[in-house]
Amino acid sequence: MRKKIYDVILAHEEASAEAFMKKIEGKKPLFVCVIGSTETAKIPGLSAAGKHPELTEYTPAADVELLLLGSCKCIKGVPVTPEGIPTPALITMSALKLANIPTLVVSGGVKIKPLVPYLDLGGKPGGDIRTGNAVENCEEILLRAKIAGENLSKIAEYLVVGESIPGGTTTALGVLLAMGIDAKRKVSSSMPKNPHELKIKVVEEGLKAAKIGFGELASDPLKAVSCVGDPMIPAFAGLVLGAAHRVPVLMAGGTQMGAVLAVVKSFDHQLLNNLAIGTTRWIIEDKNADLKGIIAQIVDIPILAADLDFSRSRFEGLKAYERGFVKEGVGAGGAAVAAMAKSRGKISAAALLEEIERNYEQLVAER
Amino acid sequence: MRKKIYDVILAHEEASAEAFMKKIEGKKPLFVCVIGSTETAKIPGLSAAGKHPELTEYTPAADVELLLLGSCKCIKGVPVTPEGIPTPALITMSALKLANIPTLVVSGGVKIKPLVPYLDLGGKPGGDIRTGNAVENCEEILLRAKIAGENLSKIAEYLVVGESIPGGTTTALGVLLAMGIDAKRKVSSSMPKNPHELKIKVVEEGLKAAKIGFGELASDPLKAVSCVGDPMIPAFAGLVLGAAHRVPVLMAGGTQMGAVLAVVKSFDHQLLNNLAIGTTRWIIEDKNADLKGIIAQIVDIPILAADLDFSRSRFEGLKAYERGFVKEGVGAGGAAVAAMAKSRGKISAAALLEEIERNYEQLVAER
Repeated sequence: MRKKIYDVILAHEEASAEAFMKKIEGKKPLFVCVIGSTETAKIPGLSAAGKHPELTEYTPAADVELLLLGSCKCIKGVPVTPEGIPTPALITMSALKLANIPTLVVSGGVKIKPLVPYLDLGGKPGGDIRTGNAVENCEEILLRAKIAGENLSKIAEYLVVGESIPGGTTTALGVLLAMGIDAKRKVSSSMPKNPHELKIKVVEEGLKAAKIGFGELASDPLKAVSCVGDPMIPAFAGLVLGAAHRVPVLMAGGTQMGAVLAVVKSFDHQLLNNLAIGTTRWIIEDKNADLKGIIAQIVDIPILAADLDFSRSRFEGLKAYERGFVKEGVGAGGAAVAAMAKSRGKISAAALLEEIERNYEQLVAER
Repeated sequence: MRKKIYDVILAHEEASAEAFMKKIEGKKPLFVCVIGSTETAKIPGLSAAGKHPELTEYTPAADVELLLLGSCKCIKGVPVTPEGIPTPALITMSALKLANIPTLVVSGGVKIKPLVPYLDLGGKPGGDIRTGNAVENCEEILLRAKIAGENLSKIAEYLVVGESIPGGTTTALGVLLAMGIDAKRKVSSSMPKNPHELKIKVVEEGLKAAKIGFGELASDPLKAVSCVGDPMIPAFAGLVLGAAHRVPVLMAGGTQMGAVLAVVKSFDHQLLNNLAIGTTRWIIEDKNADLKGIIAQIVDIPILAADLDFSRSRFEGLKAYERGFVKEGVGAGGAAVAAMAKSRGKISAAALLEEIERNYEQLVAER
């Protein structure tokens, strides 16, 4: 049985995970959601996105509208998978609301702009990584994000940073392979059947187009992102680089955090001990992916996993999370961890599910 | 002799000004700079902008780059008036740096986008108010700014909000007259000779084009801004409306704050006692304008004025401030007040001038 603090599983590096929980307990975080888009998401079969690419382009914008407004504005209802399973932003929104955690949106580059305030970093939507030329202006995005992170770290007691970018696990795989981290068959998926072979094929096409071999860009993370990454990654990494010297940063996400961590590490070793990954139980129990296996190749930072359990939910759309749908995204796990830590456990997994169901009922069931 | 706390003059409503200083003393603010642009600035003779309109379009972007980077990026050197007098952002930057105050940029709508992170509210650059149709999407800008203000008020102990928009006193005059506040010959100017008659003529042309009489929009501030205002005003007002229920807000600026205050007041009376204006001695001593005369017609909130004195500066470009050039802008006065309050007077007017001269030397004198 894994050790827990409140309903947070200390899933990796138990001692430092416990120390990180102590650091953030009772403290007031700022939640930052980094959005981006990549044409890669439109490749058929790759992502839940593939089936309705025209709708999925709205997902990042709709997700952050949900966080800031309590409902989406650029679409009706909330983003759903082709099977009708709702966005993890429902979890994030419920956690942030219960714990009264302020939120800021940062765009690394998106096709559809959200109808809420967002921090613009001058980035553009990402291209298809099969071209080997996926992200423009990567260094500038990272530098601007770093400035934002520095300034935010002066007012927030710590940061929780999440992301929303359809197709993001494939671009993460691209960056990880280019940087020499063996992540094949280790990245996660929002679908129960993880299309590993297709992801590998897409990434290899991109690496070939960019004339990059495995690990060749181990010390050139910006080139790795430019060739086969996405615009969320440099924005996220820049925020961490700017903030984590002054305050702890909880990197909220699944296996994509591997790519961000690899970029952060090649710029700055000193702040790694101020980082942890915040995720969901569904990610750490995923048999078709291996977050720890990725992280352990980079640097063993702690992993904190919100022990969410939707198996007894009243709603089929939430129960589906237990069957391998969605699992994580929009910083859901990290936001849940932060809500539990801020409230010193008063916000339990059960209380959170209740709030999620309340919001689900309002936003999804009756539309 | 007016009462001072540290080097802050309690320039209006002394008792509540003192109480406001007590509220913010030793506290950690967030400085927010709202930028915008208006075609009105290009009208010859209206603003220092008129002589070099093509350069002045870069001013808001260059100003906030100076705040965040310590130097401008979209132009060489720093913004200057046609006479070579440097931007008040030099004062702001020096105050924020000395007091280690974090900064966030918010755009209400600008033609030239800054090369630093900025919060986008979906606004567009403002048009010439002589058309009577100056700002698009005014309500949405205000609503989005309000969301940002609400979220920021959960992490900052108080907000200092400044602005940079060339031509802004004329658009402020437009909004004030439309709302029934007699501000003729009361708005300030960045030039020693205040072109009051021209400003009045321009505003009256705009009011006529929009078919609005004096005071006709007293209870429709958004229409006043849409017709004869600028995109900075709804962004600034929205931030105040979102934040001031939870934390004090120091409105950093000169007579333009009258227009913002009028808009804020028509939406919400309850938060007015959490507001003060932070400005410079040059504004309150200006014989060619009347900040207090404007404010007193709206609601008597306190005015705190940084007692800056550049008369003995080593640099002619700074001495010119004593001859009526520039006076205020980019939240210079409010940032100085905040630096003095945060440091409990350790940052004196003299210490600030020293820092300003150091930065002037690096950025202006030697370019």
